[in-house]
Amino acid sequence: MPLIESEAGLIAQLRDLFHTSFQSGVEIGIGDDAAVVLASNKKLVATVDMAVEDIHFKREWSTPFQIGAKLTTSNLADIFAMGATPKYLLVAAAITEVNNSQVVSELAKGIRSVADKFEVVVIGGDLSRSEKLSLSITALGEISEQPITRSGAKVGDLVYVSSLPGLSAAGLAILTRGLDRPRYVVDAHLNPKLNAPKKLIAAASSMCDISDGLVTDARHIASASNVNINLSKERISMGSDFKDLAELAVELGEQVFDWILTGGEDHFFLATVDPEKAGDEIGLQIGVVKAGSGEVLLDGEKIEKAGYQHF
Amino acid sequence: MPLIESEAGLIAQLRDLFHTSFQSGVEIGIGDDAAVVLASNKKLVATVDMAVEDIHFKREWSTPFQIGAKLTTSNLADIFAMGATPKYLLVAAAITEVNNSQVVSELAKGIRSVADKFEVVVIGGDLSRSEKLSLSITALGEISEQPITRSGAKVGDLVYVSSLPGLSAAGLAILTRGLDRPRYVVDAHLNPKLNAPKKLIAAASSMCDISDGLVTDARHIASASNVNINLSKERISMGSDFKDLAELAVELGEQVFDWILTGGEDHFFLATVDPEKAGDEIGLQIGVVKAGSGEVLLDGEKIEKAGYQHF
Repeated sequence: MPLIESEAGLIAQLRDLFHTSFQSGVEIGIGDDAAVVLASNKKLVATVDMAVEDIHFKREWSTPFQIGAKLTTSNLADIFAMGATPKYLLVAAAITEVNNSQVVSELAKGIRSVADKFEVVVIGGDLSRSEKLSLSITALGEISEQPITRSGAKVGDLVYVSSLPGLSAAGLAILTRGLDRPRYVVDAHLNPKLNAPKKLIAAASSMCDISDGLVTDARHIASASNVNINLSKERISMGSDFKDLAELAVELGEQVFDWILTGGEDHFFLATVDPEKAGDEIGLQIGVVKAGSGEVLLDGEKIEKAGYQHF
Repeated sequence: MPLIESEAGLIAQLRDLFHTSFQSGVEIGIGDDAAVVLASNKKLVATVDMAVEDIHFKREWSTPFQIGAKLTTSNLADIFAMGATPKYLLVAAAITEVNNSQVVSELAKGIRSVADKFEVVVIGGDLSRSEKLSLSITALGEISEQPITRSGAKVGDLVYVSSLPGLSAAGLAILTRGLDRPRYVVDAHLNPKLNAPKKLIAAASSMCDISDGLVTDARHIASASNVNINLSKERISMGSDFKDLAELAVELGEQVFDWILTGGEDHFFLATVDPEKAGDEIGLQIGVVKAGSGEVLLDGEKIEKAGYQHF
């Protein structure tokens, strides 16, 4: 479905932009009707994420590079959240006509800035014109063990995050006020960093990424596992970034626990862990799994379904 | 990245809409961070296609059902064009807010109307709001043999199509005039039918689908195989639909060979075939492969790169 003028030229450009030295497993990449990769006898893991201008990002805040990088981050986080290793990406981009070659190139570089770190290869794509920029990325990964689902949490497990969330929401709060500092906080929103949560994967009984916000994602696990998750303010406050985040919240007249509990868009991981496998090296313990039926509590008090409200 | 209110409800709805009785191989479907399927030791084939409102379709001509069905058709055609068997789909949809639950449901039913025919399962998706409807589908397939690329055409091979293209362009010409009959012609544009080209796959030395238009796609093969493709007006005229198509072109004051050679959006297949494997049962022979360097000719005369012009 090629609707961009000289699509052949663009495809050649994309093939160059996405060429990497770690093409292992790729038999046919960009340029034929479909890509062909060697399938191992491992399980295949697949997920798709989409980002739309003015819904997920604003062009005045984010460059195409950042938009590409951020969606790739969120996409690969979903693969890691299953305990799997990401391998391949397919990218569909709808772009405005003006400067499309440059926008395509910047999007591609942003995608690669994240994909390269994990030796993930872009094997296919589609391009279209559109009045607003939108991007949809499918990530494929593989796993030899059992995947880590959201339904494996057991009563008595400890609840961990790979890092304390909230910084992305703080960055958004700063941008919303027309400010752009502190830069590392704004960057947490615009250029979120992704790290493979290897130690947490090795220990987890259930897991998901916390891009939707800690409480929402904790509810995903609680509901799928048919347990309650009880979070602890004290334990959350022990996170290494907590003090800075709390000070920033005071400065901006916001609630730090709003950012941490419902902020979203941090690409960290939430997992439940058997106490025997627990330890400070796997992340920050922020709660425990209790008997229940899908609720998330803070210090024993139910957090309302509608979302976290001020304390 | 859930931005639709009560995404949980929508996901549950989608899980229902996409539930099938042929879930074989699906270990984890819609609802976790990513889907997990059992990988055989076959090769994995993957492709993505995107359709954007007012670029690829008009809402006044096409229902969400038709939009979903048509993109799925184009998507699965790309998998068949590699000689592979489609297995799974991942769907990203951006929809306007009004009636989103109904639009989602109609899109899903349209996707299934095609996917079910080939026992293809939707294993994942993402939903977003957007001012205009857009849809991006990733198809995954598998193949145990060598894939059929665009680069395998040999001098002396015969050129086949699985069916004569042109009816989709004729349907578009009718719609563009504000008409809606003959219905079977309009339907060829709005509801293209896909058939697995099994016999052509078994015989093909190179292959692609002809959604971009016969000449454009023939050029893909000619260029990748470093040969010329010489099409024959006489042979094309022997197609079973040719007479009807020619009469319709006269009625509308259009050129039938425009529709056939450059129309596009017919989800048929173009292949080159060793003469020893040729025969009427595999499709319609419309030309031969000649020595050359990537050109497409009609009765020996070069068709200009800019596209097919009137005769």
